[in-house]
Amino acid sequence: MTRDELFAQIQKKRSFLCVGLDTDFQKLPIHIKEEYERTEYKYEDGWKRGMKKSLYEFNKAIIDMTAQYTVCYKLNLAFYEVLGSIGLDVMLWTCRYIRDNYPEIFIIADAKRGDIGNTSEMYANAFLGVPFIDAVTLSPYMGRDSVDPFLDSKYRGKWAVILALTSNKSAEDFETLELANGRKLYEQVLETSKGWGTTDNIMYVVGATRAETLKGIREIVPDHFLLVPGVGAQGGSLQEVAEYGLNEKCGLLVNSSRGIIYASEGENFAKAAAEKACEMQQEMEGLLRNKGLI
Amino acid sequence: MTRDELFAQIQKKRSFLCVGLDTDFQKLPIHIKEEYERTEYKYEDGWKRGMKKSLYEFNKAIIDMTAQYTVCYKLNLAFYEVLGSIGLDVMLWTCRYIRDNYPEIFIIADAKRGDIGNTSEMYANAFLGVPFIDAVTLSPYMGRDSVDPFLDSKYRGKWAVILALTSNKSAEDFETLELANGRKLYEQVLETSKGWGTTDNIMYVVGATRAETLKGIREIVPDHFLLVPGVGAQGGSLQEVAEYGLNEKCGLLVNSSRGIIYASEGENFAKAAAEKACEMQQEMEGLLRNKGLI
Repeated sequence: MTRDELFAQIQKKRSFLCVGLDTDFQKLPIHIKEEYERTEYKYEDGWKRGMKKSLYEFNKAIIDMTAQYTVCYKLNLAFYEVLGSIGLDVMLWTCRYIRDNYPEIFIIADAKRGDIGNTSEMYANAFLGVPFIDAVTLSPYMGRDSVDPFLDSKYRGKWAVILALTSNKSAEDFETLELANGRKLYEQVLETSKGWGTTDNIMYVVGATRAETLKGIREIVPDHFLLVPGVGAQGGSLQEVAEYGLNEKCGLLVNSSRGIIYASEGENFAKAAAEKACEMQQEMEGLLRNKGLI
Repeated sequence: MTRDELFAQIQKKRSFLCVGLDTDFQKLPIHIKEEYERTEYKYEDGWKRGMKKSLYEFNKAIIDMTAQYTVCYKLNLAFYEVLGSIGLDVMLWTCRYIRDNYPEIFIIADAKRGDIGNTSEMYANAFLGVPFIDAVTLSPYMGRDSVDPFLDSKYRGKWAVILALTSNKSAEDFETLELANGRKLYEQVLETSKGWGTTDNIMYVVGATRAETLKGIREIVPDHFLLVPGVGAQGGSLQEVAEYGLNEKCGLLVNSSRGIIYASEGENFAKAAAEKACEMQQEMEGLLRNKGLI
């Protein structure tokens, strides 16, 4: 998907919402967990099948009810890897379900990988080599050769989403350190890495909890898309993110995970998620309109 | 495993070798690939079973022949993730095989993870929560709260292995940047992060291709174990690494992956791997003896 195609979707849906499918078995609705408990011992490998079914059914229900409000789903690998191979299956099934049923929606594997060249080629293949994954998040610490394989021409239309300034408190440990040249580390990461690819294959992660920094970030990367976590559970303000972050092609994907997918523990969980997603879409529609983008 | 227990193993085996199981199907011995081709279509899911069998048999053969020379195995997740859930199964089976048959050997999941707190808890559980994994590699970019969950007391005896200065050329993009305080970024990573845990639960990755920097690194972290990749295929010198890196409890795990596991493409691949591992063990024995550590 190109930047223009992504922007076209944003205009059509009047939303730049990304729903984070950080699906944690412990936080599933009570009736799903109870159903799992009932099936657990029914057959050999029962707990595995039961676990896969519970998580996949939850994801599908959330997707079916939120797809109309969102232009992007982000699957956080940690939540799937913790279940071993079962989790990885659920993650890939979920991505395929999205692509099959909502082919216009952008799909991000939130993996935060980064390794030396020959290993990064493997990671690039592991994620971008999958037909129904559009983008993968990467840590920039090891530099260009850890990112380059993801920008290879064989992955045309796919994206590397590089960590710049994250939403956690400890971002201050290293990301905001001042360099000898007067820049902060995350600013240098933006400045250096924007030359590795284009605005059609690089995005950056910028946490919403640091919305005021978006102004300076937009001076370095005016045209790039930014993936913005931290709105909602982590306390970031959508209004502020839009004020400083929107550009003439929107340039923002704002993620909400827990605030949407765990909106209710009851049987109405998917409807509750849809309501939260709809609220965000409505607010985004207003912001896009104010900016003259729709 | 504590630092003292690891050092005791090193003394017993007269080796500080870590064998990297970066197992790539394309590089398997020809007879294993041919056997896979023959079984591929035999039954439903045949390619999956065949792939699992090929990779697992290869790993087992390498392990059985190299275990006497090594104190550590490192499994690079990228090489397993690229195969999806199949690969993750093989990775976990391999770790279990090592623990069951060579319980003294230290096992590192080379995953280079790092994410915000609640996600890092998931990653910590995904790796250190597995009984037969002792350590996991982590990227420090996001700071302390991305590492803390791996240092939790519930993972006593397990380790976080934090990237400091890596062996790839692009380490110069960010890792060696000079900060306003005169330190380089990787030096600050060492200085800051060493306070997050102890010498019994934190190690650092320092590439052998930058052996001369080990002297300065030892001034910051004199007592920590260092995991050193880059000897062999990447051109680092074991002699230099030992000269600057050895401390009074050895303090080094030197990794070799491709140089050992792909020593031969023939049916003698495991024997060839053993010979390469033995060569390194012999050289290490001399270095340990020179230093008065055995």
